[in-house]
Amino acid sequence: MARILVVHGPNLNLLGGREQHVYGHTTLSEIDRQLQHAACQAGLEIECFQSNHEGELIDFIQHKGAGADVLIINPAAYTHTSIAIRDAILAVAIPAIEVHLSNIHRREPFRRHSYLADIAVGQIAGFGAHGYLLAFQAACHLLPRGAAGG
Amino acid sequence: MARILVVHGPNLNLLGGREQHVYGHTTLSEIDRQLQHAACQAGLEIECFQSNHEGELIDFIQHKGAGADVLIINPAAYTHTSIAIRDAILAVAIPAIEVHLSNIHRREPFRRHSYLADIAVGQIAGFGAHGYLLAFQAACHLLPRGAAGG
Amino acid sequence: MARILVVHGPNLNLLGGREQHVYGHTTLSEIDRQLQHAACQAGLEIECFQSNHEGELIDFIQHKGAGADVLIINPAAYTHTSIAIRDAILAVAIPAIEVHLSNIHRREPFRRHSYLADIAVGQIAGFGAHGYLLAFQAACHLLPRGAAGG
Amino acid sequence: MARILVVHGPNLNLLGGREQHVYGHTTLSEIDRQLQHAACQAGLEIECFQSNHEGELIDFIQHKGAGADVLIINPAAYTHTSIAIRDAILAVAIPAIEVHLSNIHRREPFRRHSYLADIAVGQIAGFGAHGYLLAFQAACHLLPRGAAGG
Amino acid sequence: MARILVVHGPNLNLLGGREQHVYGHTTLSEIDRQLQHAACQAGLEIECFQSNHEGELIDFIQHKGAGADVLIINPAAYTHTSIAIRDAILAVAIPAIEVHLSNIHRREPFRRHSYLADIAVGQIAGFGAHGYLLAFQAACHLLPRGAAGG
Amino acid sequence: MARILVVHGPNLNLLGGREQHVYGHTTLSEIDRQLQHAACQAGLEIECFQSNHEGELIDFIQHKGAGADVLIINPAAYTHTSIAIRDAILAVAIPAIEVHLSNIHRREPFRRHSYLADIAVGQIAGFGAHGYLLAFQAACHLLPRGAAGG
Amino acid sequence: MARILVVHGPNLNLLGGREQHVYGHTTLSEIDRQLQHAACQAGLEIECFQSNHEGELIDFIQHKGAGADVLIINPAAYTHTSIAIRDAILAVAIPAIEVHLSNIHRREPFRRHSYLADIAVGQIAGFGAHGYLLAFQAACHLLPRGAAGG
Amino acid sequence: MARILVVHGPNLNLLGGREQHVYGHTTLSEIDRQLQHAACQAGLEIECFQSNHEGELIDFIQHKGAGADVLIINPAAYTHTSIAIRDAILAVAIPAIEVHLSNIHRREPFRRHSYLADIAVGQIAGFGAHGYLLAFQAACHLLPRGAAGG
Amino acid sequence: MARILVVHGPNLNLLGGREQHVYGHTTLSEIDRQLQHAACQAGLEIECFQSNHEGELIDFIQHKGAGADVLIINPAAYTHTSIAIRDAILAVAIPAIEVHLSNIHRREPFRRHSYLADIAVGQIAGFGAHGYLLAFQAACHLLPRGAAGG
Amino acid sequence: MARILVVHGPNLNLLGGREQHVYGHTTLSEIDRQLQHAACQAGLEIECFQSNHEGELIDFIQHKGAGADVLIINPAAYTHTSIAIRDAILAVAIPAIEVHLSNIHRREPFRRHSYLADIAVGQIAGFGAHGYLLAFQAACHLLPRGAAGG
Amino acid sequence: MARILVVHGPNLNLLGGREQHVYGHTTLSEIDRQLQHAACQAGLEIECFQSNHEGELIDFIQHKGAGADVLIINPAAYTHTSIAIRDAILAVAIPAIEVHLSNIHRREPFRRHSYLADIAVGQIAGFGAHGYLLAFQAACHLLPRGAAGG
Amino acid sequence: MARILVVHGPNLNLLGGREQHVYGHTTLSEIDRQLQHAACQAGLEIECFQSNHEGELIDFIQHKGAGADVLIINPAAYTHTSIAIRDAILAVAIPAIEVHLSNIHRREPFRRHSYLADIAVGQIAGFGAHGYLLAFQAACHLLPRGAAGG
Repeated sequence: MARILVVHGPNLNLLGGREQHVYGHTTLSEIDRQLQHAACQAGLEIECFQSNHEGELIDFIQHKGAGADVLIINPAAYTHTSIAIRDAILAVAIPAIEVHLSNIHRREPFRRHSYLADIAVGQIAGFGAHGYLLAFQAACHLLPRGAAGG
Repeated sequence: MARILVVHGPNLNLLGGREQHVYGHTTLSEIDRQLQHAACQAGLEIECFQSNHEGELIDFIQHKGAGADVLIINPAAYTHTSIAIRDAILAVAIPAIEVHLSNIHRREPFRRHSYLADIAVGQIAGFGAHGYLLAFQAACHLLPRGAAGG
Repeated sequence: MARILVVHGPNLNLLGGREQHVYGHTTLSEIDRQLQHAACQAGLEIECFQSNHEGELIDFIQHKGAGADVLIINPAAYTHTSIAIRDAILAVAIPAIEVHLSNIHRREPFRRHSYLADIAVGQIAGFGAHGYLLAFQAACHLLPRGAAGG
Repeated sequence: MARILVVHGPNLNLLGGREQHVYGHTTLSEIDRQLQHAACQAGLEIECFQSNHEGELIDFIQHKGAGADVLIINPAAYTHTSIAIRDAILAVAIPAIEVHLSNIHRREPFRRHSYLADIAVGQIAGFGAHGYLLAFQAACHLLPRGAAGG
Repeated sequence: MARILVVHGPNLNLLGGREQHVYGHTTLSEIDRQLQHAACQAGLEIECFQSNHEGELIDFIQHKGAGADVLIINPAAYTHTSIAIRDAILAVAIPAIEVHLSNIHRREPFRRHSYLADIAVGQIAGFGAHGYLLAFQAACHLLPRGAAGG
Repeated sequence: MARILVVHGPNLNLLGGREQHVYGHTTLSEIDRQLQHAACQAGLEIECFQSNHEGELIDFIQHKGAGADVLIINPAAYTHTSIAIRDAILAVAIPAIEVHLSNIHRREPFRRHSYLADIAVGQIAGFGAHGYLLAFQAACHLLPRGAAGG
Repeated sequence: MARILVVHGPNLNLLGGREQHVYGHTTLSEIDRQLQHAACQAGLEIECFQSNHEGELIDFIQHKGAGADVLIINPAAYTHTSIAIRDAILAVAIPAIEVHLSNIHRREPFRRHSYLADIAVGQIAGFGAHGYLLAFQAACHLLPRGAAGG
Repeated sequence: MARILVVHGPNLNLLGGREQHVYGHTTLSEIDRQLQHAACQAGLEIECFQSNHEGELIDFIQHKGAGADVLIINPAAYTHTSIAIRDAILAVAIPAIEVHLSNIHRREPFRRHSYLADIAVGQIAGFGAHGYLLAFQAACHLLPRGAAGG
Repeated sequence: MARILVVHGPNLNLLGGREQHVYGHTTLSEIDRQLQHAACQAGLEIECFQSNHEGELIDFIQHKGAGADVLIINPAAYTHTSIAIRDAILAVAIPAIEVHLSNIHRREPFRRHSYLADIAVGQIAGFGAHGYLLAFQAACHLLPRGAAGG
Repeated sequence: MARILVVHGPNLNLLGGREQHVYGHTTLSEIDRQLQHAACQAGLEIECFQSNHEGELIDFIQHKGAGADVLIINPAAYTHTSIAIRDAILAVAIPAIEVHLSNIHRREPFRRHSYLADIAVGQIAGFGAHGYLLAFQAACHLLPRGAAGG
Repeated sequence: MARILVVHGPNLNLLGGREQHVYGHTTLSEIDRQLQHAACQAGLEIECFQSNHEGELIDFIQHKGAGADVLIINPAAYTHTSIAIRDAILAVAIPAIEVHLSNIHRREPFRRHSYLADIAVGQIAGFGAHGYLLAFQAACHLLPRGAAGG
Repeated sequence: MARILVVHGPNLNLLGGREQHVYGHTTLSEIDRQLQHAACQAGLEIECFQSNHEGELIDFIQHKGAGADVLIINPAAYTHTSIAIRDAILAVAIPAIEVHLSNIHRREPFRRHSYLADIAVGQIAGFGAHGYLLAFQAACHLLPRGAAGG
C-alpha cells in the first residue's frame, strides 16, 4: 500500500488561532483528519507530523522518508531558511510537494524564496487548508497506477 | 450558474508536441476537454481561450472577465513579462488562480518572477496538465457554496 | 495646421470603471472629447487612439507619427516593458510627452522605470485625467509660434 | 482666498544664466512674476521662496505650509538627497506638486531618484520654465471648487 | 498582575565568560537576578528563559506568550536567521522589545539585519547587560497604567 | 531542398528611413531581395517575414518553423523583452541565428541582454544590413552537406 | 559635574503636532523639560538644542561637544543623509547615544541605514518620547561612577 | 594529551547511502573509525559527534570545546545558515578547521558562502571522506610540538 | 591677475585637533597661510573659505566663482552627499580641483564615491595638508601662461 | 594593398585538441591557412598571431596595428579580463571585429561580458572556426571599395 | 610512474620574506624541497614551477599538463583574475587541486572569488606552507592505486 | 641618497601619439626626462620603467622595490585588473603613489575601481603629464628630511 508523509513546519501547531486573516480558521488537527479521511478513501496510508524544531523535522524525514512514496511538506518559516531540510529530502530521495497556506509570493520579500522549490515536484500556495487536499490529489497523481490500496 | 474562465498564454497551443520532457504529452484540447467535463459534473460553466498575442489575452480578460467568477490562467512566457495582463485582471477585479505546467521555480532565473503572483489568489506549479484540474478544484472551493449548478 | 497625436496604452479603454481609487472616474471617451475640444479652440488637429495590442500601438505611431508634430502618450503597462514602442517613437522622430494618470513613482517598484522617460521631452504624472490637458498645453508650448491654426 | 506656496531649491537663483542648454533662458524672477500674474488672474494668493540652504527651505515649509493649500516645489539638487525636506512636507501635511525644469529621467542616474516623488501628488518634469505654469494649473485643479477668489 | 517574558537566544548562557570585549562581564544569571529584582519592585511578574535551540525558543514563546503582556527578547544569532521565531511572536501577538548587548550596527554586515526589528515595538542595542534594564523600563512604559502590582 | 526562415522584428519595416546613423541606409526589401538572390544561387528556399506584433512573430515561427532548417532572426526590440519568442523557437526546435544591425553591446544597457542569445547557435551584431548575408552564410554552413539544391 | 548634550535634528520642533500616529503627542519642549528634570535629580548638567540646519547642528556639536561627557542625539532625517554630522561627532570624540522616536527599522527602506549607528555607543528606537529618558539613563550608566553631582 | 573534537552537521549520519555521486560511499562511522585510528597512532584523544539539531551542535561545542585543542567541523547545511554555530565557536575560542566532503564552490550558489570560513583557521573541501584525514593532519600541525601523546 | 578660490567643507575648521592619525597636525589657518604665501610668490590672488553649512558653501561658490579662474575644493563630508555643491560648480562653470587630506579610497565604502569627481579636472587625495599645495601647483598649471602676476 | 591583422588569444594554440565539444576540431594553423587563402583570393595581405601572454598581444597590436586596416581578434579568456588589450586597440585606432568560437552568451556568466564589445565594430560568436571566415568577409566589407588588391 | 605538477603564481617567489604575518616564514624553495622529498618517498615524479607572468604559467600548464596526472596549483593573485589559466587547465583536462597559503575567505572580499574553484577537485586554504603537503597527499589519494612508483 | 622608482603600465609607451584628447601630447620619454631633471635638482636618484607585460612590471617592482624609498606608479589598464601588482607592492612594502593622466573618475565605470588605491599613500588623477611632477613632489614630501642628496 502506498504511503504518504505530511510534514508541517514551525508554528503550524497554532493554526486556527494564529493570525486568521492570513492563515484561515481550520486547525492543524482538522487538516490532518481531512487528509486521513481522504487517504482512507483512496486506500493509502498517511502519516502526519509537526514540529517547531528543524532538527526533529530532519530526523522525521530521514526515518520515515525512505519507506514512503511521496512527501507533502509545508516547511513554514523553514522554507526560507533551512538548507538542512532540503538536504534531508534530497538524501532520502523522495518526491516532495511543497504546500503553503498563504500565497507566499504576495507577502514579505524574504518569503518569496524557497530552499525547497527547485527540488520539489511542484508548489501549491495560497489556498489555505484546502491546499493540503490539492496536494494530496497531486500526490495520488504521482503514484504509479495501482498504488492506491483496495 | 457560476462561470469559470481558463486562459492559456503563448505557445501552449503546441502542448503535447513541444518539449515533452518539460511540458508533458497531453495536448491543449485534451486539457480543455477534461476541464469541460469536470465543469459539467460540477454544474459550472467554463470557457477556455488560448492566444499567442498579449493583446488578445487582454481583450479576452476584459470582455469575459466581468461576467465570470474565477479566472484560471497560465500566462506562460507572459507570466514574466506582461504587466498589461496583470493590469487587465486587476481592472476586471476577478479572483485569479495561476497555473504553470512546469515548476517554474527550478528553471531559468527569469522564470522565477511572476507579474501575476502577488495579485493572484494562489499558484499551482509543476504538476503538468493535472495542475489545471487542481486549479479547477481550487476555483470551485473559492465559489460561494451553492454556486455550482444542479 | 499643427497636428497632435494622442496614444493610450492597454486597459485604458476601461477608464472610469476600472480601479477608481487609482485612476479616477473619467472615461476615456470623455478625455478624448476634452482634448478634441481644447484642440479645436487652439486651432489644432488632434487624433486619439487606444489599443491593448503593443503591435497596434507601434503600427499607429509608425503610420501617423511622421505627419504629426507632437505625440502625447500614456503607454500604461507598456511604459515599463516595451522597448518596441520606444523604438517606434525614435524611428519617426516625433517629440513625445509622457502622461500617467497615477503617480507611478509611489506605486509598485516595477512601475518606477519607464522605457520612454529618457527619450521623451517630459513627463506628467499623478494628475488623473487632468494630466492629459496639462500635456496638451505642454504640447502647444512645444509647437513653433503660429503653428496653431487661425 | 486659497493660497499657494512655490519653493525653489539650490542654484535656481542662477536660472537664465546657468547652463542654458539644460535649464533654458528664463530667470527665476521672471518665473515668479508669471506665477504671480497667473495667481492674480485666478484670484489666488501665491508666495515664492528660494534658498540654497536646506535648513531655510525646511523652515519656510514649516512656517508657511500650515496656512497654505498647495505646495509647488522644485527642490533641485535636494530632490535627490534631502529626506528632511520630505519630512517637513509630511509634517505640515500639504499637498505637494513636484516640478523639474529638465527631464530628470534622462540625466545622470543619481537624478532619477526623488525623495519627494512618492509623497507628492504628482510630478511635472522636462518642460523648462513652462513647467511651473503647468504645475500652477494642476494646483488650481486640486483646490476645492470656489477656492479661487473673485 | 502584569507579566513579562524575557527570552535569551543561543550562546547567551556563556555570558560573562565569552568574548568579554564584545559582550561584557556580567553573567546571564546576574542579568536575570537584576530583572527579577526590578520586576519585584515594580510589582510585576517576570519569567526568564534561555536556550541554544531555535525550536525550544519557539515552544517557549508559544506556551508562555499568550498569557504574558510584553516580551523582552535578545535572539542573539537567531536575530539574523530565524523567521520561525518572528512567526511565533506574530502568532501569539505579544508586543516585543528587541535587546542586543552589542551594537549590532557596528559589527559584521550580516548582523545588521534583524528578522525581528520590523515587528518589534522597538530596539535597544549596544548598552551591554544594562540594555535589559532599559528594556524592562520600556516594557513597563508599554503596560497600561495600573498594570504593575501593589 | 533546404529551407531558411528570416524573421524581422518590430520597426525593421522602417529600415533605410529610420535613424540612419544607427541602422544604415538599406531598406528591408533590399535586404530581403539580397537574401533571396543568395538563396537562389545556393539552391535554397528562403522565406522572409516582418511584423511589429510579438504574437504574429510567434505565430509565424510556429507555423513555418517546423518545416524549416534554419531560422535567421533579428528580433529587434523584442530581443530584450520577449520570452514568448524564445519559447516559440524552443518549441519548434529550429536552430536559430541571431542578427542585429547595430552592435547592441555598445548601446543602452538594456540592449545588452538578449532572451535569445543563450538558445541561439550564434550571434552576429554590428555589421548593418551586411550582417544578414553573413548570417545566411553561417546558416548554409550549418546545413548538412548536400542540403543546398542544384 | 558631568555634562550631557541633547541634539534634536530637523522637524523635531514640530513634535506633538506632526504625524502623531508616527511620532506621538509629546512636544519637544516637554521632552526637554523631562530631561532637565531627570538631570537635575541625577545631579548632572544637560543642554538641549534643535535645528533644521545641518550646519547649525555641526556647529553646536563642535562648540559644545568638547566640554561634554555624553551626546544624546536624534538626528531625524539627517540620520540617513549626513556624513558631516558623523564627522563632527568623530572629531570631538564624544560618546554618542542614538535615539529615534519611531522604530526606523519598520519604516521606509531608506530609514534603515544610519550614518551614525556604527560610531555610536548604542541605539534606542521605537519608544517615542520615552526613548529620550531611556537614553538619559543609558548615558548616566556610561559616566564614570561619581560623575553625577551631589 | 592533546584533544581534538570532530563535529558533523545535519544529514551526515546518512553518509554512504545518501547521494553517492556527490558525497561518496564511506559511512560516517567508517570516517570516525579512521579518525580514531589516526588519533590513536598520533597519541591524541579524539571525540566525534553528529546531530541534525543546530542546538545540539551548539551545546556540544560549548560543553566540549573549552577543554579541547582543535575543532574539526563539517557543519554541512548549517555552514550556510547558522550564525549561532559560528558564535559558539567564537565563544569557546577554539581553533577550527572547516571540512566539506564536496567542493562547495562548484555547487549551488548558496553553498558558496560559509558563516564559518572567515573565523576558521582554514578550509578543506572536495576530497570526500579523505578530507577528514587531511583535516586531522592539519590539526596535528596546529598543535604545539609535543602535544601528541607518547 | 589670476584668482584662485579655496573652499574647505565641514569640520575642516577643526583640523590639527581632530583625529590626527587620519588628518594630520596642521591647522586650517596654517594651510591657508601656506597657500597665501605660495600665491603671493606666484603673483596670484587667492581667497579661502570654510563653512560647516552646505548652503554657505554654495553661496560662496556662486558669489565668488564667476570672477575666479580655478577652484580648489575639499568638500569633506559633503563630497559624498552634496549634489547641490556639484550643481553650483557646474553653474558657475569654473574648473575645479578636488583635494582630500586622507586617501578616501582606503576608508569607509561610502567615502569612495564623490559627487564632484566626474566634473572636476582632477583629484589629489591622501597627502594631508601637503595636498593643498600640490593642488595649488596643479591650479597654476591650468592657468593660461602669463596669468600669474608680476 | 589593404592589410588585415588576425589576433588569437590564450589557449587558442590548442584548438582542435582542446575541449572539442566546445570549440570544434579545426586546428589554429588550419584556420590561419584558410584565412591566408581567402585573403590571397581577395588580394589582401593578412597577418596572424597567437600568444598566451597578454603583454605580447598588446605589443603585437601596437607594432602592427598602426599600419593595418582592420583587426580581427578573438581575445579568448582575455575578452573578459583585459582592459589593456582594449586600450591598445583604442590607442592604434584600428577598427576591430570580435570573434568567438563558442557562443559566449550561453556559457558561464563571466564570459558574457566583453571588454572589447563596446569598442568593436561588431561581434561574431558561436560559429566555430567558420566564424573567422565570416569575420574576414565582414572585414572586407569594411574596407573602402578598391582596397582589395588585384 | 605517476607525475605531479606544482604551479606557484605571482609573488610566491618572495615567500618567507614577504608579509610573514600573512604567509609564514617558509621560503618557496623549502616548500619545493619538501614536496620533492615527499614525492620521492611515494615513488612519484614531481615538477615545480613559479612565475609572475600569467602567460608563462599558461605555457607551462599547456606543455607539461598533458603528460601529468595531477596539478597542484596556487595561482596566488591570478586566482581571482585569470580566466586564461582556468581555460588552460580545462584544455589539458588535468585534475587540479587548489592551494592557498592564507585563508582567502577571511581577507579582502575580492580574494573570496576563485576562477579555479568550480573546476578544481577541491581546495585547501589557510594552512600555510603545510597546505602544499596536504595537497600532495590529496593528490596521491586521487591517483589510481599502484600509480605511485616503487 | 634616496631613490624613487617610476613605473608606467601598458600602452603608456604610446603616449603623445595615442588618443591625445584623453591623454595629452607629451611623450613618455619627455615625462621621464622631466622627472630625471627634477630628481637631479632634488639630489635624488630616480629610475623609470615601462612595460605592457603585467609579469615584467611585477618582476621590476620585486627587483628594484626593496632598495627604493618611494614608488610612483601609473598602472594604466592594470589599475583595474591586476591584484598581482598590488601584491607585489605589498610584498616589497614600499610606499606607493598612484598617478593617472586622465581623471579616471569621469570615464567608463570600470575605470573607477583601482586595486591599488586602498594600499597607496595617495592618488593624483586628471592632470595629464603634469601629474607625474606633482607625484614627484608628493614623493619628496614623504621622504625623511635630509634624504634628498646634496
